[in-house]
Amino acid sequence: LFKRWLSGWKCDGVKNPYLDTMEEDILYHFSLSTKTHNLPEMFGDIKFVCVGGSANRMKAFAQFMHNELELPGNPEDIRDICEGTDRYCMFKVGPVLSISHGMGVPSISIMLHELIKLLHHAQCRDVVLFRLGTSGGVGLAPGTVVVTDKAVDYSFQPQFEQVVLGKVITRSTELDEGVASELLQCSSELPNLPAVIGNTMCTHDFYEGIKKNHTLVHCGCFQVLYK
Amino acid sequence: LFKRWLSGWKCDGVKNPYLDTMEEDILYHFSLSTKTHNLPEMFGDIKFVCVGGSANRMKAFAQFMHNELELPGNPEDIRDICEGTDRYCMFKVGPVLSISHGMGVPSISIMLHELIKLLHHAQCRDVVLFRLGTSGGVGLAPGTVVVTDKAVDYSFQPQFEQVVLGKVITRSTELDEGVASELLQCSSELPNLPAVIGNTMCTHDFYEGIKKNHTLVHCGCFQVLYK
Repeated sequence: LFKRWLSGWKCDGVKNPYLDTMEEDILYHFSLSTKTHNLPEMFGDIKFVCVGGSANRMKAFAQFMHNELELPGNPEDIRDICEGTDRYCMFKVGPVLSISHGMGVPSISIMLHELIKLLHHAQCRDVVLFRLGTSGGVGLAPGTVVVTDKAVDYSFQPQFEQVVLGKVITRSTELDEGVASELLQCSSELPNLPAVIGNTMCTHDFYEGIKKNHTLVHCGCFQVLYK
Repeated sequence: LFKRWLSGWKCDGVKNPYLDTMEEDILYHFSLSTKTHNLPEMFGDIKFVCVGGSANRMKAFAQFMHNELELPGNPEDIRDICEGTDRYCMFKVGPVLSISHGMGVPSISIMLHELIKLLHHAQCRDVVLFRLGTSGGVGLAPGTVVVTDKAVDYSFQPQFEQVVLGKVITRSTELDEGVASELLQCSSELPNLPAVIGNTMCTHDFYEGIKKNHTLVHCGCFQVLYK
């Protein structure tokens, strides 16, 4: 029933003209700031950002990446860069940033907002963003990795409705096709890793939105996958 | 500009006929279960539940209540009941339960869903629920405590739209008038504590929904208050 969930975006710069004229930009929920931290030095080499809900899982993922990349030092010593706040956790391993985002779209949106500004201030280029998570699923064997090509809302539309100052704005939720193909290609080179490209449904409620109850095993995010 | 935000509900039982026929109810995001924990023994004396976003703040609040209630033992030793998970933190001090809920309505809704089942399984009676938080505000002096009588959505309507299995359900957001009056009465008995009854706006986005930017000091929740 359950699949791992993975989706990729390419981050191609920020179109906010005010960012470069600010005396200080406080990334409050990361406990970072352009005045108190040298963001280009701390983050300038980032090429991959991996995000997921749980702080413990994203720490475990960072330690896993530390080993995979054969970096020097003890993976147990990886420090939470956001230790000044209890909102999110952030771990850096070489060119990979691993960040927890809590549960639900509003919590994710605060993190993404500050992350994209962070990457801008750090002068990062050609960064790929991934979300990793578990999910319920329909029509696929348990353990299947689903590489998401688009996210759909509760009514199966590939869109995200956002309210900006009282006005409803609709944004596309199609993800980067090239990243999805590359991920699928990678998975085909690994043994015993069933992977497909599929859609992910995102609801705003763990229980009512997708009607999870005691007859289903719970899992830690909001997506139902289908193909 | 900023006010403390406080709202109260009275919890008067659960109308879900399936709850009592379940062999086990796993409150997954609390890391508690009816089979592995004696919920009536652990929580049966709860009369007040106070919730807020940040785990550190809710721990500090629990320690504050420990001192206020003149309970025995060291407030530094208060244990996180949900230490088996990193989703929420929960602290019990006498008849008061203090729980963190993360950021945003979806994160809060998961916590409330499991909390209300927890109170049911623990056979609690006459429980009052409060949310405490900071907020931006309009038309009130900084430091004012706003006791919320109703929450309004982005379009100033006193309602909460929830999607249940693809259907949009609208629920009232009016809070308990008696609790609000009692809270206002309490505040009038304390020196230097300006308090009013007012409304709270809840958006689903910290930045776009209420357009916070670098010219405003950030605060840790989603409400804009007005009177």
